[in-house]
Amino acid sequence: MIIIFTGNGKGKTTAALGQAIRALGQGKRVLIVQFIKNTIAGEHKFFGSFRVPKSKFQIIRGGKGFVKILGDKLPFAAHKKAAQSALKLAAQKIKSGKYDLIVLDEINVAVDLKLIKAGDVLKILKHKSTPMDIILTGRNAPKSFMKVADLVTEMKEVKHPFQKGEMAKKGVEF
Amino acid sequence: MIIIFTGNGKGKTTAALGQAIRALGQGKRVLIVQFIKNTIAGEHKFFGSFRVPKSKFQIIRGGKGFVKILGDKLPFAAHKKAAQSALKLAAQKIKSGKYDLIVLDEINVAVDLKLIKAGDVLKILKHKSTPMDIILTGRNAPKSFMKVADLVTEMKEVKHPFQKGEMAKKGVEF
Repeated sequence: MIIIFTGNGKGKTTAALGQAIRALGQGKRVLIVQFIKNTIAGEHKFFGSFRVPKSKFQIIRGGKGFVKILGDKLPFAAHKKAAQSALKLAAQKIKSGKYDLIVLDEINVAVDLKLIKAGDVLKILKHKSTPMDIILTGRNAPKSFMKVADLVTEMKEVKHPFQKGEMAKKGVEF
Repeated sequence: MIIIFTGNGKGKTTAALGQAIRALGQGKRVLIVQFIKNTIAGEHKFFGSFRVPKSKFQIIRGGKGFVKILGDKLPFAAHKKAAQSALKLAAQKIKSGKYDLIVLDEINVAVDLKLIKAGDVLKILKHKSTPMDIILTGRNAPKSFMKVADLVTEMKEVKHPFQKGEMAKKGVEF
């Protein structure tokens, strides 16, 4: 199945992460490739602490962090290069057939920011074997992704503390 | 913070589960109380396999399974009793102050099905200490929950394979 978690609300990456846990619990092999974030978040620490074997689970931080916001000073070309390398790696991993679930985290955002092309993502999705599941996360998923997906959920922001001016909280937002 | 994941789309429980992983990774103590599901899902197997210490993490299956669907033959009173016991337990755990994150999984559904009262849930939420986070999941969250919540995401179904008549898949749906 191809699954998309999109929308402006919280819970897209965490839903993919929960899906990864569920799959791991069922003995499946999981890979997460992150296209934007590159900080050491709670999930990285978790998998480090509890020694989930690498044969079963890997997170690859392909991104160079937030693009053009939150003090980002990196040239756009550097973000583009990082996202394109991440896409190349994702292509190899999909073709390898070694995983039951591959999460392409914030790949929708990478397309929206023009770091990678929607058409190039669609090309790599074609190499998915039938039993493999792929989850694409991030706001503004292109319509072409929705078309090939089997399952799409829009995470819609109804209420958010940032509306009230609160800061990101450790263990919740990262 | 009080966080709500509601809506008819996939990703509510998995987002809470991902949040739990993130919190655990940051050294926080997490409790999940399940109000409806009682099957051994991937997440239970995962935490069993990777031996996350009980002092850091527990999942309690308080529910008696699906209510009035999927071949459920249990009397309504039995579901009600189970959900009310789960609520009592959740109340104790919230008051104990021993957890940084408590997930009340499908508690919105338990209220919607009239297994427990919204007012009783609001009462136990009042005992939340300031640093504690509580996540309430399940479709049809009551407006009174939305009002007290700091963050609400509606998981909206855009496309679902069940629309095409496919069955639940191990490691994805459970």
